[in-house]
Amino acid sequence: MQTGRRDLFRGALGLGAVALANSAASAQGGSSAVRRYVRFTHSGSTQYGLLEGEQIRPITGPLFGDHRPASSTVATKDVKLLFPCEPKQVLACGLNYRSHLGNAPIPTRPEIFFKPITCLQNPGDPIVIPPDAKNVHFEAEIVIVVGKPLHRATRAQAEAAIFGVTCGNDVSERDWQGGADKDLQWWRAKGADTFGPLGPCIARGLNYGNLQVEMRVNGKSMQKQRTSDLIFDLPSILVQVTKYMSLFPGDVVYTGTPGQTSAMKPGDIAEVEIEGIGILRNPVQQG
Amino acid sequence: MQTGRRDLFRGALGLGAVALANSAASAQGGSSAVRRYVRFTHSGSTQYGLLEGEQIRPITGPLFGDHRPASSTVATKDVKLLFPCEPKQVLACGLNYRSHLGNAPIPTRPEIFFKPITCLQNPGDPIVIPPDAKNVHFEAEIVIVVGKPLHRATRAQAEAAIFGVTCGNDVSERDWQGGADKDLQWWRAKGADTFGPLGPCIARGLNYGNLQVEMRVNGKSMQKQRTSDLIFDLPSILVQVTKYMSLFPGDVVYTGTPGQTSAMKPGDIAEVEIEGIGILRNPVQQG
Repeated sequence: MQTGRRDLFRGALGLGAVALANSAASAQGGSSAVRRYVRFTHSGSTQYGLLEGEQIRPITGPLFGDHRPASSTVATKDVKLLFPCEPKQVLACGLNYRSHLGNAPIPTRPEIFFKPITCLQNPGDPIVIPPDAKNVHFEAEIVIVVGKPLHRATRAQAEAAIFGVTCGNDVSERDWQGGADKDLQWWRAKGADTFGPLGPCIARGLNYGNLQVEMRVNGKSMQKQRTSDLIFDLPSILVQVTKYMSLFPGDVVYTGTPGQTSAMKPGDIAEVEIEGIGILRNPVQQG
Repeated sequence: MQTGRRDLFRGALGLGAVALANSAASAQGGSSAVRRYVRFTHSGSTQYGLLEGEQIRPITGPLFGDHRPASSTVATKDVKLLFPCEPKQVLACGLNYRSHLGNAPIPTRPEIFFKPITCLQNPGDPIVIPPDAKNVHFEAEIVIVVGKPLHRATRAQAEAAIFGVTCGNDVSERDWQGGADKDLQWWRAKGADTFGPLGPCIARGLNYGNLQVEMRVNGKSMQKQRTSDLIFDLPSILVQVTKYMSLFPGDVVYTGTPGQTSAMKPGDIAEVEIEGIGILRNPVQQG
């Protein structure tokens, strides 16, 4: 009897998840069935929800599992938006647009590196320039949010494991990365606290392979390119990563930045806008 | 009234924690008041406990907060030992013994890199060689377990934040790290699944600055050096890391390997032994 009741409950939740999945699938061609998930704090509690214009509808159940929308909403103006999921791992891909290569040869496989989870920053919160940093650049990127465990994934499995995408700024100190003050590895160049702004939402059901990515500083366009120009597309990156290391739901992968970048200074406003996702806006502060 | 009861309870737990801290402090000179913490699975549940010879005494309360020993014990032979804490971040330091530098210049500061949490492996469980890996080396290392949140730490704060130390094997694929098949960064060279064996316990209260670190393969000694030979000692590494990124309780930092390393092959038994901690033993398998 009890088992029967539990199955009924599971079935009800499952239906919601299937409906979501179907919407996402049908939207790959560009339909309007796109979902946008946010993570937010409201009245002291942190929740996930679906963005509906100026309102957020909280969800019940796990983001990456069976969940369903609540019956009531809260106004976005009354909440604090957070980076949109809680990854256990943050990866990134370098040298992934021809326009960003400079004199470097075209890579023969996705070139991966790690950012630490402590570098993640919320939409609206500051990018803090470390006291001894002199050359902190923006990097606008589309970021994969992984929705399923992945290990030695086929291309089809990698595609199916992309829960959605968000905007990221892969903030990079160039002198530490490759300049006069170069480290052996990119740990602080790419990993200092606040060097990983992420958000404002996870968009699910877009055609991830053809979206415009734009960087603006103080309103001026600094980078603008489409994800169709990526050397390695989103599933290819996940195939390469998971040949060697496992990924889990919530893990995020920055996918590379296009064109030229330049240094940000305290007082600047850095904005990453990706078509269909939204605007990730962060002020820049001296630390 | 209820507040009073809660304070009493807190006081009781606090006393336990103070006793632990005092024991650890008095043991810095090498007294016998060393504690060894393990993480283990027993009867389907995962717990932390104190190693007492062939027995484990589970603890109540958080490992990095107020906790106290249970009244009963379980036999080590009846449990499965796990890597001894659950870090949110795994860092490592390269080029930190003169004997390991080869032709590289002596570094002027700790050279840090990241390993992913997915590379951690339990004592006794296998190091799995990825199908296309050809040159997978051992690296015996003493590993810091951080016990307090750290941000821009002074040396004194860094010293106080070292909860204890454990044994680590910073498994490294040399062809991917710097050889013919070199990547831009060391992500898979140092980060493939199972490339981070850790354990068997966290030892607290040793003189961390003067312990013998030894690597054995199939019983043969391959590396042997003392932590007094580290170019940058444990607190110095934490000072450098936390100038830029925050650390949290449970985070671990591999501190560098001495001497020469060589390739392991399927069927080998890799053992890292550190004086006062114990032996981290892992078989090597083909993946």
